[in-house]
This record gives sequence, C-alpha cells and structure tokens, in this order.
Amino acid sequence: MKPPRALLFDVFGTLVDWHGGIAREVDRELGALGLAVDASAFAQSWRAQYQPAMQAVRSGRQPYTDLDRLHRDNLDKVLTDRGLADQVDEATRERLVQAWHRLDAWPDVSPALAALRPRWRLAPCSNGHIALMVDLARHNGLVWDAVLGADIARTYKPQPAVYLASCAALGCAAGEVVMVAAHSSDLAVAAAVGLRTAFIARPDEHGPGLGETCATVPVDWSASDLQDLARQLGSDVRA
Amino acid sequence: MKPPRALLFDVFGTLVDWHGGIAREVDRELGALGLAVDASAFAQSWRAQYQPAMQAVRSGRQPYTDLDRLHRDNLDKVLTDRGLADQVDEATRERLVQAWHRLDAWPDVSPALAALRPRWRLAPCSNGHIALMVDLARHNGLVWDAVLGADIARTYKPQPAVYLASCAALGCAAGEVVMVAAHSSDLAVAAAVGLRTAFIARPDEHGPGLGETCATVPVDWSASDLQDLARQLGSDVRA
Repeated sequence: MKPPRALLFDVFGTLVDWHGGIAREVDRELGALGLAVDASAFAQSWRAQYQPAMQAVRSGRQPYTDLDRLHRDNLDKVLTDRGLADQVDEATRERLVQAWHRLDAWPDVSPALAALRPRWRLAPCSNGHIALMVDLARHNGLVWDAVLGADIARTYKPQPAVYLASCAALGCAAGEVVMVAAHSSDLAVAAAVGLRTAFIARPDEHGPGLGETCATVPVDWSASDLQDLARQLGSDVRA
Repeated sequence: MKPPRALLFDVFGTLVDWHGGIAREVDRELGALGLAVDASAFAQSWRAQYQPAMQAVRSGRQPYTDLDRLHRDNLDKVLTDRGLADQVDEATRERLVQAWHRLDAWPDVSPALAALRPRWRLAPCSNGHIALMVDLARHNGLVWDAVLGADIARTYKPQPAVYLASCAALGCAAGEVVMVAAHSSDLAVAAAVGLRTAFIARPDEHGPGLGETCATVPVDWSASDLQDLARQLGSDVRA
C-alpha cells in the first residue's frame, strides 16, 4: 500500500472544543440578558440540531447553504423550544452564531499540525464553510495547505462527494489520504469510499465524559490525541 | 469606504516566474532528448495557448477541467506545430506539465506575503487548480488562508463568477477585497464586479523586457513589486 500523501481533518470536536466554547459564550450572552440557562445543556441542544438540519441539503431537497445559516436557524429553534424567543434580540443571536468562528483548539492540535505539515499536505474536511475554517485557523494559529470539505463539494458529510472532492482537490487518490476524526460515523464513510482513517479520542467533546473514547469501526490508526497520532506517523512533536 | 479585509492574488506571472521556470525545464528536458529548441520561445508558445484553451470552458461548451489537462493538451499542440511530436515521449511530456508545479516565486513575494498576512486574509485567485496552488505554495514556502479561484468556481477567469465566488468564500463583500495582479485585463474585470485592485509591475513576465510595467486601466494601487504594495498598505516588510 502506498504511503499517505495528505491528511484531512474533521474540525468540530476533533480539532476544536465546540462544547466548551459555545457553553462559555451562551453563559456570557444570555447571562447579560438576565437569563439563567444551563449553558452546557443549551450548547448540547444547539449542536443536536446540526445533523437533522443538514439532511435537507444532503438529500437534495434544499440547495447547499453555509453553516452560519444553519447555526442561526438551529439557534432560533432552540430558543423557541425553551420559551426564550422573545427575550433574545437579533444582535445577541448573531454574536452567538459568530461564536462558532472563535472556538479554541484542543491544546494538542497546534503542535501536532506543525509537526505533521513538513511531510503531509494538511486540510480541514469539515461541514463548516471556508470563511468559518479561515477564522478558526487564524484564531488558533493553524496553517492549512487548502481549505476543503463541504463548501467545495456543495453538500455535507457524510455524503461521499465531500471526501472524494477533497481528495481530488489535493490531486490524490482516496487511498493516499487519511481522514482524521473523533467520530466513528465520519470514519466509517471515509473508509467505505477508500480513504484511510485515523481515530482521535475526544472523551469530553460534548461536555466532561461525553465523547467517543475509542472507535466503534475498524480504523487504520487510533490515537489518544493528535500529538499521539503524529508520533505514530513518525513525526517529531514538540509541545 | 470600508478598509479591505482580504487580498486575492493572481499567481502565474504575478507571484511566480512561469517563463523562467518553464524555459529552464524545456531546455533541460528537450536537451536531454538531443533536441535544440529556443526554450524561451517554446515557453512563450506554450503559454500563448493558455487563453484560447480556457475559452471552451468559459463559454460553457466544455465542462470545467483542470490546468494540468489544459497544459498537457497545449504542450501536445506546440510539439506538433514544431514538428517534434514523434521525438518527445510520454514521460517527458508529463514531467513538463509537472514543471508548472515547481515554478519559483519572484524574490519579493515570500517576504511580502509574510508581512501582509497578520492583517489580511490572503488567498490565490488563479486559474490554476487547488493541487497546483498547493504545490507552488509548498515549493516557495508561501502560507495561504485558503486556496480560491477557478477550481472552486468551476470556470476560469476572467469570468465574474471566479472573483465573486472567491470573495464569498472568504465571507467578504466584493468591495472588501483587493485583487492583486500583474495583468490589466484581470484587474479590469475584478474592478467591474466590485473588487478593489492593485497592479504589480512584472516587466520580465514573458521574458526579459516582456511584461506589463504599468496598468492600462484605473487601479486603486500600483506597485513596483509586492513588497512595494505591502509598504503602501502599511505593512512592515522585512526581506
């Protein structure tokens, strides 16, 4: 088997801590309006709308729309469900949508990507659009070779087109590319369309103790974090 | 007027010296086959096929195809026109197509981009596809926020869709983006669709003394090279 030439990365959960970042900003923004909410549960509810919202695009019923729009629609729905629709103004809602652009990376990510980059082409393969990926990279000092994923394929993972368009954009066959993710469901489809796969444990993704600790599907590499994966791939990681 | 948020860059001629790089590799590759050609004239002939080859895609007569494919078709045509078709083997042709992936940047480019990057989002907006842009960036140590241009728009400049899709991918209005190019024709269309424009003089683009020295259309900035532009935009350039 040929050695890999490129690594593609899931982003939300795998590279950045969406739960911690969103809970913090929900607490701050809704607190400023005098609303007492369980920010962790609110973040989980908001994220739970994510997969169903994408389904209309995946099925072809709706044209591709970016994640800012889906995040906004989903936020509106969560606020309505919780009886808060009249108490949260437009500007607050927009700031909360923008909070997804300022999420912090897990601490192992930046040194691991820096160690991997000399040997491999690196790109996000996220359902987030290019502008969102650019902001997250700038916020966390990450360097990508290109920004791939849903925005270039104009549909959402796990549609096979997203993985395949990302490999093609790098000039690589699927088998030359490793999909790196903290979600077995993502890796299962990547493997089915020919990519190699690496699982990263993110045991706190959805909150403390609420994340995948090991892959539930066969993978080519399984790592405790991204620095562990970089070491397994033979890169010299300096924290 | 709002300050710019992002800079988009033409690549061939503006950032990298295609004439020098291609002439050098043509000289080496065809020389190795015992063929005596004027390598500079050959490079110019090859490049001259570039605009007509893209026209079929721009007009919608042909689906989008990447520049490696067009470069290969154009090379075959130049070799046939020169009576060299029987003397240049398949492997040599493929190596020559790949020479476009290894072009050197003009010496001012790398320090200027490094100086610009802290303040602005930077992306190529080239007719070259993503894989080609990734290779050129790696060859020259350039860092992009994203790789935009023809490949994401699935048509070629100067179709307005290429500039507009690139701005949209960065989450910017056209007027928040500066198109940077050494070609007045590129800048004319960018300005027509609402981008701001910066002209870079590349007097030797097509060979010594064969390049645009000043813009023939109105532009917002005009610079002797990319370091000059960075200084005009207020960035501290260190060579």
